[in-house]
Amino acid sequence: MSERRLKHWGWGYEDQAPSRDELVAAAAGIRERFGFGGEVEEPVALDEVELRAPRLKVPDAFGELFTEEHYERVAHGLGKAYRDVVRGFRGEFENPPDLVAFPRDESEIEVVLSWAEAEGAAVIPFGGGTSVVGGVEGRLGDRPFVSMDLRKLDRVLEVDAESLAARIQAGATGPGLEDQLREHGLTLRHFPQSFEYSTLGGWIATRAGGHFATLYTHIDDLVESVRAITPRGAWESRRLPGSGAGPSPDRALIGSEGILGVIADAWVRVRPRPEYKSSCGVEFDDFHAAARAIREISQSGLYPTNCRLLDALEAGTTGAGSGEKNLLVLGFESAQLPVEEPMRLALDIARTHGGTPGDPRTSGPTGRNRPPGEGFRPVGGESEDAVGAWRGAFLLAPYLRDTFVACGVLSETFETAITWDRFEEFHAETMEAVRAKVAEVCGVPAEGNGSPRVSCRFTHVYPDGPAPYFTVIAPAIRGGEVEQWDEIKAAASEAVIEGGGTITHHHAVGRDHRPWYDRQRPTPFAAALRAAKGELDPAGMLNPGVLLDP
Amino acid sequence: MSERRLKHWGWGYEDQAPSRDELVAAAAGIRERFGFGGEVEEPVALDEVELRAPRLKVPDAFGELFTEEHYERVAHGLGKAYRDVVRGFRGEFENPPDLVAFPRDESEIEVVLSWAEAEGAAVIPFGGGTSVVGGVEGRLGDRPFVSMDLRKLDRVLEVDAESLAARIQAGATGPGLEDQLREHGLTLRHFPQSFEYSTLGGWIATRAGGHFATLYTHIDDLVESVRAITPRGAWESRRLPGSGAGPSPDRALIGSEGILGVIADAWVRVRPRPEYKSSCGVEFDDFHAAARAIREISQSGLYPTNCRLLDALEAGTTGAGSGEKNLLVLGFESAQLPVEEPMRLALDIARTHGGTPGDPRTSGPTGRNRPPGEGFRPVGGESEDAVGAWRGAFLLAPYLRDTFVACGVLSETFETAITWDRFEEFHAETMEAVRAKVAEVCGVPAEGNGSPRVSCRFTHVYPDGPAPYFTVIAPAIRGGEVEQWDEIKAAASEAVIEGGGTITHHHAVGRDHRPWYDRQRPTPFAAALRAAKGELDPAGMLNPGVLLDP
Repeated sequence: MSERRLKHWGWGYEDQAPSRDELVAAAAGIRERFGFGGEVEEPVALDEVELRAPRLKVPDAFGELFTEEHYERVAHGLGKAYRDVVRGFRGEFENPPDLVAFPRDESEIEVVLSWAEAEGAAVIPFGGGTSVVGGVEGRLGDRPFVSMDLRKLDRVLEVDAESLAARIQAGATGPGLEDQLREHGLTLRHFPQSFEYSTLGGWIATRAGGHFATLYTHIDDLVESVRAITPRGAWESRRLPGSGAGPSPDRALIGSEGILGVIADAWVRVRPRPEYKSSCGVEFDDFHAAARAIREISQSGLYPTNCRLLDALEAGTTGAGSGEKNLLVLGFESAQLPVEEPMRLALDIARTHGGTPGDPRTSGPTGRNRPPGEGFRPVGGESEDAVGAWRGAFLLAPYLRDTFVACGVLSETFETAITWDRFEEFHAETMEAVRAKVAEVCGVPAEGNGSPRVSCRFTHVYPDGPAPYFTVIAPAIRGGEVEQWDEIKAAASEAVIEGGGTITHHHAVGRDHRPWYDRQRPTPFAAALRAAKGELDPAGMLNPGVLLDP
Repeated sequence: MSERRLKHWGWGYEDQAPSRDELVAAAAGIRERFGFGGEVEEPVALDEVELRAPRLKVPDAFGELFTEEHYERVAHGLGKAYRDVVRGFRGEFENPPDLVAFPRDESEIEVVLSWAEAEGAAVIPFGGGTSVVGGVEGRLGDRPFVSMDLRKLDRVLEVDAESLAARIQAGATGPGLEDQLREHGLTLRHFPQSFEYSTLGGWIATRAGGHFATLYTHIDDLVESVRAITPRGAWESRRLPGSGAGPSPDRALIGSEGILGVIADAWVRVRPRPEYKSSCGVEFDDFHAAARAIREISQSGLYPTNCRLLDALEAGTTGAGSGEKNLLVLGFESAQLPVEEPMRLALDIARTHGGTPGDPRTSGPTGRNRPPGEGFRPVGGESEDAVGAWRGAFLLAPYLRDTFVACGVLSETFETAITWDRFEEFHAETMEAVRAKVAEVCGVPAEGNGSPRVSCRFTHVYPDGPAPYFTVIAPAIRGGEVEQWDEIKAAASEAVIEGGGTITHHHAVGRDHRPWYDRQRPTPFAAALRAAKGELDPAGMLNPGVLLDP
């Protein structure tokens, strides 16, 4: 593809991998800090990875469109969950695509679909490949499949500066589309943790959550219209700011994870880059007092851009805090209006719940042509205060996970959403269930040095409840990491579903969440979705196994 | 049903009908003001209405559940569009339900569905019956049908004051649910024009638009979860503040107009009643300058509660203005925070576009236990200023329409939404097409005294575009009103669809919008919806003809 190549396993580019010396130093640091972790192991090199032979032949007529090249089949073989990174590290690519296709335009998407249908092959749409739920891994047994990589459709096609909307191709990555929007003084400001690599089409297919902690939490809220290619023709909604004409066709595609059609492009709502910003950390002794402060802020109509609560453990782990206090990271931003006043009001609320704010960092229009999204790149940006430290750690986390894997540390997350009335009990029971399972599975003490680290933060908040996000760090059972995590994840998912939460707030369902998703969704809705897919994709070729049985 | 009975045609209760003398005076006033309109005619009395004999017999086993009573069959025979009111006035009830059912709980909904399925009958869910798109009229030829009136399911079942949510039965009307929420100091604040009569289930089934001009424009945004009864069992989503687990099951039901299931109850997001309010009228010489001001306000992040633009003609007709100036009705409200500052900022924006604000009316916490929604009752409330005058006229409009019908005046509306970049041209072309068609059909001059009155307001605004709402007032062709309006409506719909708008922003599709809706929606989406319905309702019994062919 390009000169700079993504790692065939794990996160980031090949040239970003730490050296052997760096890893040895990291392993020692991890052991000292956490009380667990082992010696550095080496990943299986790309050319040592053994793949099943392709069961499809690159068609002569479309030679440029398909490839069976080793690197591409490996790099499209797994997503980016912990269980994927571990398997990639060990060279275990059990379900590589038989071919990888790189359509350059919509007609080539159609070619791939019709060729695959004739071959009886399945097609898995692939954006950034950052799925953490098995969304891009074809666990299809004997059925051959093509991974359809959409990253050559990477252009901002049209900009409507008056309505603040842009038509963008599905394969544009976060930085790619922000670079193009910047030329117009605009930004989408959708910054999931995977922002550097994931794509607009992937965000829409998986209902990705982004930058805004309130109001515009999901990509759902930023979509004005979608165009997708189905085996029954193009599905394109009108550009409308609002509508009441039947059930929303866009909402039917948003979250469809590729089973109804391949998203080709979308009109999304963009905005001028923020000129006014204010951020502030607020410390709380008590986690639930902080949660109550956030509840009041989320119900106040202030709509902070950032409103993220890190429990004391997580604040310590990320370096945003000492580890003694819970930290609320609060931020406001606006392109048009000063934000001191809403920040002041939000801090007043925080104080009434026992919060101790630091000094807000506030900036107004600078005149500089600072690129939008700059602060969200993993390298550079603000890092002097707690807010900056959190932000840096947020984007570095997936990189760090590769190091953890090499050093024998299990590190994974799960997330949900729950209404406020049930939150305290839900939080207690989920933490308890997961801590107990981690201690049991990992054979470590439940308390004290060397015990598992299970922490919680809020990624998004709503007037009716928060979206809690849990992080687990524990000693890995080397060679048995996948089973180890699967057992913990099952306990976590059970707690989430039994407690009334959603199996995913913004990581999608994919294949890994299926058993719990199937319990969560209304049965008649599942039947309706199955019928809809059967109608549009009678061959059942589009990403079989996610959301529905293959 | 109750002692106070709704009129069998038109709007409101029987005891609200104006007297003969009042109508004669109104007719004279209308002729003087508009230059058209005729003598007062009398509606066909209820006992003179001739109905087709019922083709279904009230089942012995469920005698209390069903009725074939004359009044009920008449009152459930038509919606509340102009074409419905005219037909009701003339006693033309061509498609009365064979039976009307009044389930009192969910099990009785199931009884009605299973009995009707066994009889080969269709079922049309009926809330307030305020559909203006033929949504409740069974134009089903020889197929017998039951109108299922849900208004006995009228309770607020649970209130979660912590998460600010309430579980409310589908048949609760606006005042009914607000009365029950008021006991908890809460309000839903969903105030469509039909608020007094329409129901929560109807709002959800039709994607009703409400009180908030920005952010929470549709009932869609207020729904936390929905429970519906389908022929394949109960469809109930979890109470979740946010989710990313597959396409939203709620969004599939919202706007489904009864074709997938009968909505039984829903958890909706409520709020404390606003303590701080500020409203202000802003006059503009130029309509499009006002639209640009609104565009800037809608993109500013200020999120006014009210942001409605009345063109000069509409401002004059409603008594909110002199008829010379365009009027922006701006309002902010909050339960927690003062609203002077956002009002000041919004007025600053309005001034930069040539707007002349009046004096804002601002009120803070009063200590009085003023009931929420009080100002939205048609009688009483604020009426001293332009904002109050508009609000009063807004709720009186459907009552006034009955008088117009009696006096030979055609009065009807249509609405859409369009992005800002296309708005000016869209507005010009739609106005031109409708004015020309009205002049042609009504045989009146296109300009000057006696010419048709076609006016425009914005009901809701988004960062990417407004929702324009058009009102037509013209001389009626007596006895030919339905054909007359249908011809105008076809021209309007053609202009809306050709211009890129939506056939409805918040009035639903029903039967009347079908030809244009079918052109608007993505073809594969229509196929998917048809398949979903076929799966859940294989007998095709649920409201056949809306959204899809019967």
